[in-house]
Amino acid sequence: MINKDDIARSLMSLQDEICQGLESLDAQGKFVEDNWEREGGGGGRTRVIQGDLIAKGGVNFSSVHGELSENVRKALELPFPEFYATGVSIVLHSNNPFVPIIHMNVRYFESGDVYWFGGGIDLTPHYIFPEDARYFHTQLKKVCDKYDKTFYPNFKVIADDYFYIKHREETRGIGGIFFDKLAENHSKVELHNFILDVGRSFVPIYAQIANRRRETPYNEHNLNWQKLRRGRYVEFNLVWDRGTKFGLETGGRTESILMSLPPEATWEYNQDPEIGSQEAGTLGLLKKGIDWVNYTSG
Amino acid sequence: MINKDDIARSLMSLQDEICQGLESLDAQGKFVEDNWEREGGGGGRTRVIQGDLIAKGGVNFSSVHGELSENVRKALELPFPEFYATGVSIVLHSNNPFVPIIHMNVRYFESGDVYWFGGGIDLTPHYIFPEDARYFHTQLKKVCDKYDKTFYPNFKVIADDYFYIKHREETRGIGGIFFDKLAENHSKVELHNFILDVGRSFVPIYAQIANRRRETPYNEHNLNWQKLRRGRYVEFNLVWDRGTKFGLETGGRTESILMSLPPEATWEYNQDPEIGSQEAGTLGLLKKGIDWVNYTSG
Repeated sequence: MINKDDIARSLMSLQDEICQGLESLDAQGKFVEDNWEREGGGGGRTRVIQGDLIAKGGVNFSSVHGELSENVRKALELPFPEFYATGVSIVLHSNNPFVPIIHMNVRYFESGDVYWFGGGIDLTPHYIFPEDARYFHTQLKKVCDKYDKTFYPNFKVIADDYFYIKHREETRGIGGIFFDKLAENHSKVELHNFILDVGRSFVPIYAQIANRRRETPYNEHNLNWQKLRRGRYVEFNLVWDRGTKFGLETGGRTESILMSLPPEATWEYNQDPEIGSQEAGTLGLLKKGIDWVNYTSG
Repeated sequence: MINKDDIARSLMSLQDEICQGLESLDAQGKFVEDNWEREGGGGGRTRVIQGDLIAKGGVNFSSVHGELSENVRKALELPFPEFYATGVSIVLHSNNPFVPIIHMNVRYFESGDVYWFGGGIDLTPHYIFPEDARYFHTQLKKVCDKYDKTFYPNFKVIADDYFYIKHREETRGIGGIFFDKLAENHSKVELHNFILDVGRSFVPIYAQIANRRRETPYNEHNLNWQKLRRGRYVEFNLVWDRGTKFGLETGGRTESILMSLPPEATWEYNQDPEIGSQEAGTLGLLKKGIDWVNYTSG
C-alpha cells in the first residue's frame, strides 16, 4: 500500500524532473528556489524561472497538514478536521506571444480514511492555432485512455466549465483536462500513477508546442494583444479560480498562489479586435464544447 | 419630497460637472461617452478619458431597475424584489507615478418604501506623501462635518476596513471615507445633499493633489513601482471589492465595472523594496488606523 509520504516523495521528484526539463527547454533561464514553512503545519518549495522562452514561470511543490475550519470541513463533507494535502502546480508565461500560457496541477488530499486525487492541464494561447489545440488534446486523451476511457471525455467537459470567464462569456483558453475528488473505480496505486503520468506528460507536450512557435517573429501589435490576453488570465484567476480564491481567503502563501499571474497585463476600455483579424479568429474559438481532438478548420 | 428621478437627475448633472472639471484639469484629454442599456431595465453613460495627467480614467453614471434575485433580496433583508439604483462612480489612474490613483462613488438605492444612500472617496498613492494624505482627509472631514460630526470618524474606519488587501496585509492606499445604507438620523433631502457635496468635493480635492505632483520628474524605477502598485489595485478590485464581485457575478456591464482597472500592471515574484527606500516608506504607511488628519511625521 502507498501512503501519503510515498505520494509526496513522488511529487517532489516530479517537480525536480519538470524543472530540469524546463531548464533544458528554455536553454537560458535557471530556476531559483524558495523554501517556505506553513504556520499551521508543513511547507513547500516554490521555484521560479525567467528565461528566453519563459518570461515568468513557477513550479510549486507543497506538502501541508493541519486542521480545516469547520466551514471547510462541512463543505467537503469530511468526518475529521485533520487534513493532509500535497501537490505540484505550474504556470508558465512565455515571451513570444505565439507561445501559449500553460497551467498544470496534480494533487493529493486526505483526511482520516478519506482521500482523493485531483489535477489537470490546460492551455491558454494568446493566438489559437487549431493544429496545436488538436495536438494538445490528443496527447491528453492518450494519457487518460491508458487508465480509463471515460476520463478524457469527462475531464475535458469539466475543464471547459471550470476555465470559463463568465463575465466575458469566454473560455480562458482551449481547455484541456480537469478532475477533482478522484477516488472511486480505481485503486489508490492506479490513481497515483495516473496523476504522475499527467505530470510527466507536461514537459513533452509543452516542448512540442513551444518549439513550433518560439521562433515566430512578432511585432508591437502582437505584444499588445498578448498583454490584453494576460489581463483576461488575471481576471479569471482572481475572480473565478476556486483554488486561488480559497488559498487567498484561508491565509495560504500569497506569493506561491499568485505565482500564476503574468509579468505584465493591460486593460483597455471596450477593446475589440478588427473583424477578420487573427485576434478576432482567436476570440471566436474561446468557446466551450469544441471537439479539439477531431477539429478540422474550414 | 424628492424622489428617485430627482436623485438620478442630480447625479447625471454631477457626472457632467465632474467630467468638465476633469477635462479642464487634464488640459489635453477629452471624455468619450458610451451609452448603454441594461437588459433587465435602465442603463447608463460610461465616459472614459485618456490624457496628459490621466492615463486611464472613467466616470460612470447608471440608473437601473429590475428584480433582485431571491438570494440578494434576502441578504439585503428587503420585503420586495423590485429595486431601483442610481449612482456615479469614478476611478482615475495617472501617468505620473507621484500622482495618486483616486476613486469616488456615490449612489442611491430603493426598494418599495426602503431606501438608502452610499458612497465614498479614497486615495491610493503609489508614493505616499503624508502632507497630501493629511490634506485629503482634512477635506473629507470638512465635507462630513457639515452634516454630522460622527460621519467622518465612522466612515474613515469603514474605509480602512473595506479597502484592505487581506492576503497582502496592506491597505489599498491611505483610505478616505466609505459609507453604505445611510438612511437614519437625517432626512432624505439632507442625505441627498450630503452625497452631492461628497461628489462635488471630488474635483477640487483631486486637483489640489494632482497639481502638486504632476510636474515631479520620474524615472524608470518609479514607473516600475507604479506598475507593481497597480497590480495590487487589480488584486484588491478583483479579489476583495464587494461591488466589483457582485457586479461581475450578477451579470453587470463588464466594461463599466472593470473601467476601474489600470492601463497596465505587473507582477514580480517576492518583490520587496530596499530598506530605507521611498517605496519601503510607502509600504510602511499602508496600514489601518493612521490618524491622517492629525498626522505629523518624524
